[in-house]
Parts: sequence; structure tokens; C-alpha cells
Amino acid sequence: MDRVNRHPERARHERQDLYAVLDAEHNIGTLSTVVDGRPWVVPMLYGRVGDRIFMHGSTGAGALRHVAAGAPAALCVAHIDGWVYAHTLFDSSANYRSAVVHGELQLLQGEEAAEALTQLSECMMPGRSAEVPTHTRKQLAATQCLALDITDGRWTVKVRNQPPGEPPAADNADPRLWTGVLPIVSRYRQPEPSPYLAEDIPVSPSVTSYIDESGHGPAL
Amino acid sequence: MDRVNRHPERARHERQDLYAVLDAEHNIGTLSTVVDGRPWVVPMLYGRVGDRIFMHGSTGAGALRHVAAGAPAALCVAHIDGWVYAHTLFDSSANYRSAVVHGELQLLQGEEAAEALTQLSECMMPGRSAEVPTHTRKQLAATQCLALDITDGRWTVKVRNQPPGEPPAADNADPRLWTGVLPIVSRYRQPEPSPYLAEDIPVSPSVTSYIDESGHGPAL
Repeated sequence: MDRVNRHPERARHERQDLYAVLDAEHNIGTLSTVVDGRPWVVPMLYGRVGDRIFMHGSTGAGALRHVAAGAPAALCVAHIDGWVYAHTLFDSSANYRSAVVHGELQLLQGEEAAEALTQLSECMMPGRSAEVPTHTRKQLAATQCLALDITDGRWTVKVRNQPPGEPPAADNADPRLWTGVLPIVSRYRQPEPSPYLAEDIPVSPSVTSYIDESGHGPAL
Repeated sequence: MDRVNRHPERARHERQDLYAVLDAEHNIGTLSTVVDGRPWVVPMLYGRVGDRIFMHGSTGAGALRHVAAGAPAALCVAHIDGWVYAHTLFDSSANYRSAVVHGELQLLQGEEAAEALTQLSECMMPGRSAEVPTHTRKQLAATQCLALDITDGRWTVKVRNQPPGEPPAADNADPRLWTGVLPIVSRYRQPEPSPYLAEDIPVSPSVTSYIDESGHGPAL
């Protein structure tokens, strides 16, 4: 991992910690690179499989081709888990989990690309790939599939998961002021059928089992 | 705004659309810049006030000083609103709202910085600034307060908010397969008091009214 200079107590150092952040929520991150000396950024869906991160895009996406050609890149993922109300604004904070992975993207080809696209889909919609037809050659030809390898020394994880600290002795803190955490969670709503769907078609097993097993069960 | 090349039908062109995405969820984005020709990225809390975006960090954060010194920067914000289950993996997608704002950060000073820090706090914890003491000089001295101006031609917004499309005529699509959207929402849980708090102290009005008015009312 890279070195964390600010709040080193929030750094996490094990690969499992990185995997936990990457796999935790909804598989969206920000992919950054440099184009003409300026930052180029785009939100990207991703999926981690072992020590690789897969992403994809259209073959028509020019800047993505630049990244795919080996430009230095970084993927940043961040989840807010709560607002931390302290006795002062200065001590107030957020609980969060974040990860940054640096590396060079590789453009996958042929069977490796097809398999990676299936695995990427499984990260976001587990079980779905078995319910739909396999990729066609035309679909594969229209898709860039990218891999970012997770490499020692090139990632950081930071986690804050704490109540506010003790009231400061100075700073005019009011000891009778409520302090604590307002937790934020992500939930699913009930699946919404496509308007093109016949009425008697049940929700796919992949969707119902995902809701049940995700820990993000439906908001009532 | 910048030009959106891929899926131009998803682009939004009015400032109100940008503001809606920036203000929508939990005020976390990815700040990117270029250091030594490589991408430098960090998750950042932010708050939009008018056509400015405020961020902050410790004065000890060296890379942030680099950004604050006028380096080209970009803030990327993205929310996932649902998984879109189509008849093929290729046509499957996510509903999302995303924004990228390019510009140069400015380091604010003195009274302007103090006011911006209060406004930034109000974006994340509305009402709280009136419940706590005002910033001390020591706190202000320890904080970098940054502003990113929203400038015409230097931002993009993309939104997908649709069910899956009609089943494709080809691609071996199964017309009896369930298709639709699994919506994802963000919710609060009940506030968790600090362990340092006396038991009889009620939750602050800023917290209770935030929950009630946010549209992210508590998950039961």
C-alpha cells in the first residue's frame, strides 16, 4: 500500500481490508488518469475478482482507449457510513470506508475478455449470467474490457468507524450538547418490472436471492 | 459543460441538473489532480453553495496544498440508483446520476475561509453550526478551506433513469425472462449517542429535523 500521511490510525494494511471496501457496496468508483497534463475522470462500474479489478466501456469511448493503452490510472471508491456530530464543527466528521488503487489498465482480448465481462456482471448482478444468453461476438466487439491489477505498495485503504471523541476541554464545548453518529445505510426497494414484460412473469431468482443475501434487504 | 460523447441522451445541460446531482446524496466525491504526471486522487467531502463547491482538509495534507496552489483539478460525484436487469448482459446497466466538475481550486483565507467552513458544514449537517461554538483561530489555522468554482463549459452531468429497453429481436433473448430495475436507496438509521454523553440529553434538533426533511428517513 501507499503511505497514508493524514490520520494514519485510519489506514488499513491487509489485502482483506482492501477487498472488503471494494466489495462492500454498489461497485461504483471514479477512474482517473492524465490526458494532456490534466486530470481525466469518469465514474465507472467495477468488479473485483481475486487481485484484479475489471471495468468495461464502449469501444467508442476514446479516452477509455487512452487509459487502456497503459496510461497511469487510479480507481477511487468511497462509502459514507454516517455523520459524526461532535461538540465542535472542527471535531465533527464522517464515518467512511475508502480505497484508492493505482496501476496501469490492461485491455483484455478474446476469451479472457468474455470471461471477465461475465465475472464483472456477477459482481454486480450475481446469478444473472446464468439466466441470460452468452455474449455474442458482436457484443464483445463493441465492448472494451479492462483489468487493473492490485499490486503491493500501490493501494491505500482508509476507514473511520467511530463515535465522536471526548468533548474537548477548551473550545467552549457545551457538555449538554447531544453528540453521536447518524448512520447511513443503503437499501433496495422492491424490484420494478420492465414495462415490456408480461404480467405473469415472476422476478428472476438471481434478483430475489440477491436482495435476500446482500444485507441490503428492501426498505419498507 | 464539457461534451458528452458516449450516450449523449444521458447528458444534462442545465446548471440546475448539475446542482441536483451535487446536492442529492451524501456530499462525497473524488478529487483528482496530477502530481508528477500521474493521477492523484482522494475522496473528499464537499458542499455546494451557489456556483461554488467547498472542500476542506488539514493544513498538514501536502498533496492538498498542491491542489490548492492552482493545479488543474476535477471533482467526480456518482450515485447508483438501481441495477437494470435486461435480456442480455450487454443491455444490462445501472441507473445512476453523475457529475464531473473541472477547474482550479482556490485556497480561501481569513473570514472568507471561516464562512465557507460553516457553509460546508451546513451542506452536510444542516442546522448544526448554530448548536456549536464558532470556529476558534486555532481550528481555522489547522484547516485548509478550498473553493472550486463551477464554470460554463467545464462540467458534465450524466443521468440514466430508465427501465431496460425492449427485448432485442436477435441475441437469443428469452421473452419469458424477468427484466426490470432493482432500485437502490439510501436511508438513515436511528442516531447513536456518543458513549461520552449523559443519558438524559435529547438528540439535537439539527439531527432530528435533518432526518425528517432529508427524504432519507430512517430505515426501520
